[in-house]
Amino acid sequence: MKTRIHNIYKRLSEDVDGIIIMNSTKPHVDMTFYYVTGLIHGEYEGSAVLINPDGTAEILTSVLEEESACKSGLPVTAIKKSEEREECLKDMLKDIKKIGVNSSELTYSAYKKIKDSTDAEIVDVSDTISEARNVKDQEEIDRLKEAGDIASRVADKMPDVIEEGMKEYEVAAEISYMMKRRGATGDAFETISSSGRNTAEPHFTSSDRVIKSGDFVLLDFGAVYKRYRSDITRTFAVGGVTGKQERMYKTVLEAQEAALAMIEPGVDGKEVHNAAAEVIESSEFKGKFTHGLGHSIGLSVHDGSGLSPSVDIVLEPGMVFTVEPGVYLPGFGGVRIEDDIVVTEKGYELLTNASKKELRSI
Amino acid sequence: MKTRIHNIYKRLSEDVDGIIIMNSTKPHVDMTFYYVTGLIHGEYEGSAVLINPDGTAEILTSVLEEESACKSGLPVTAIKKSEEREECLKDMLKDIKKIGVNSSELTYSAYKKIKDSTDAEIVDVSDTISEARNVKDQEEIDRLKEAGDIASRVADKMPDVIEEGMKEYEVAAEISYMMKRRGATGDAFETISSSGRNTAEPHFTSSDRVIKSGDFVLLDFGAVYKRYRSDITRTFAVGGVTGKQERMYKTVLEAQEAALAMIEPGVDGKEVHNAAAEVIESSEFKGKFTHGLGHSIGLSVHDGSGLSPSVDIVLEPGMVFTVEPGVYLPGFGGVRIEDDIVVTEKGYELLTNASKKELRSI
Repeated sequence: MKTRIHNIYKRLSEDVDGIIIMNSTKPHVDMTFYYVTGLIHGEYEGSAVLINPDGTAEILTSVLEEESACKSGLPVTAIKKSEEREECLKDMLKDIKKIGVNSSELTYSAYKKIKDSTDAEIVDVSDTISEARNVKDQEEIDRLKEAGDIASRVADKMPDVIEEGMKEYEVAAEISYMMKRRGATGDAFETISSSGRNTAEPHFTSSDRVIKSGDFVLLDFGAVYKRYRSDITRTFAVGGVTGKQERMYKTVLEAQEAALAMIEPGVDGKEVHNAAAEVIESSEFKGKFTHGLGHSIGLSVHDGSGLSPSVDIVLEPGMVFTVEPGVYLPGFGGVRIEDDIVVTEKGYELLTNASKKELRSI
Repeated sequence: MKTRIHNIYKRLSEDVDGIIIMNSTKPHVDMTFYYVTGLIHGEYEGSAVLINPDGTAEILTSVLEEESACKSGLPVTAIKKSEEREECLKDMLKDIKKIGVNSSELTYSAYKKIKDSTDAEIVDVSDTISEARNVKDQEEIDRLKEAGDIASRVADKMPDVIEEGMKEYEVAAEISYMMKRRGATGDAFETISSSGRNTAEPHFTSSDRVIKSGDFVLLDFGAVYKRYRSDITRTFAVGGVTGKQERMYKTVLEAQEAALAMIEPGVDGKEVHNAAAEVIESSEFKGKFTHGLGHSIGLSVHDGSGLSPSVDIVLEPGMVFTVEPGVYLPGFGGVRIEDDIVVTEKGYELLTNASKKELRSI
């Protein structure tokens, strides 16, 4: 993981003598801990890792996770009793004059613990960490591909799984089970399994509504594979496709294709969003695309950046985003089509590959 | 949710004019947001809620989640563009001279945003919030019971589900599926489905190891029901029970019973831990109980407190804890038995009720 640490230091606008990543109680664990240690298993609540300018690192954890932490190959200090934590932290920071912290994933409480353990100047390096994490290396891309592949294979099976009369949450249960049977360790986020007019709410999760003929079914889900996440959306029609449903689907698909065609290194993320937005704005569904086009994805489902009018980002090879235009008609329903892509030297590569060329009826 | 807000203010050692709960990007969302708003659905990344001494509250969220947020019955300000966030926050805080924050679930980055939006004195009220959340009200207990019941029913089915030759992660997939089919919206945490010598690692999750005769199988999992979590552990033997396995199981069960017998209002949490520890320390498995007896559980799986030698807590009615002694023999295997309880006026009530009176062979 030395390269990852070097990549962080290389991007810093201000030198620091060390960067400390400190976890609190779940869910307030900094995903950067896994990024720089390469660890996959373990919770590491209250643990910390100090990363140094020379690419070395050392872990502070509890004796309960010592064995797991050692799998990183890094030096590990194991705390037996919580009273020892403060002394161990002081000792870890003793030679540091200026220390970086990741304010976007550090609790204020953990920040205060760091402040109480050192006289060093504390500098927020969260923007740099986010930038470094935005550009994935090959090992990360391989895991994202596997996470994408698991979700895609499940998406392709869904028309055979869904039947009229099933409840939304039952479909969500099938999705999660099918992903785990294929090697996922969890859901990347709470699955959206919506139907009928619920599909018009972009952030709906699932309810006990019964799926029936005439509905859209919108499934937005992802797999966790070795801590990396995928995120895919497919929309289906139940009991035949109406003309309006088909026009919505074609518009969204065309919007996604227009966005994908823009993706290559050097392009402004806003332009990618705009390419999709223009397709929808010039259609009968003007005004019905109500969110950003996509978000960076990796160790977190929202990994720090995005393709949207409010985010400044220039695409670089290795960046991974969702591309997910949608059209939402309150009271009627919604269509969203979402894939994950990695920016390559010449354009992009899809990390999800489930079928989408037409609105399928189930 | 007025009562919850009043409960927080009542416990404060220092008056404040308002308390702001502010979320960052997932997973860094403050569970207190759900506690004080009563909301169940929605992600509320970057959202905030201001709670006032008179029990009123107001929500700041994005336009995408406005509809969901309104279900709380609280006044909602919806931000259309991220540039508006700062102004809205300033406006929300404009009459406040002294403001409380929850440092244990607030990112340092969100803290800085609050600081930049107000001249008010900022006070850390995280201890008070944790104390208030530790004592559950009836609605919370009802949800915890349902979460406990879902997990218990699945635990009781496991001897029929597990077969020699299955892989650990396949068992984890079955557990998750069965909980979701019974109404869980998710796993309370990554399921521990360990077998053989893996059971000796308390924090092991699952691997592709094949379950075989002679193994212990240790299953530690929980359901999420309306945002509240359960956490249960049951240990089984595969292909018959050896004498040593049975002695381990009996010791752990006896330790759990000793701890449960201690639970009533006014008791020091350390004593509950010690009651279990003494049983194990006076057995042939001395020194093999290597963790705290239990943790508070609620909206988070580790909800802020615990039954352990390092935590100062006096039991009150409404507190909810796991009680989970274990014995771990490296190279051989481990046994843990875990249930969730709520402290009542006279003692305790079990929230999980899966069978455990003997080590079952599968």
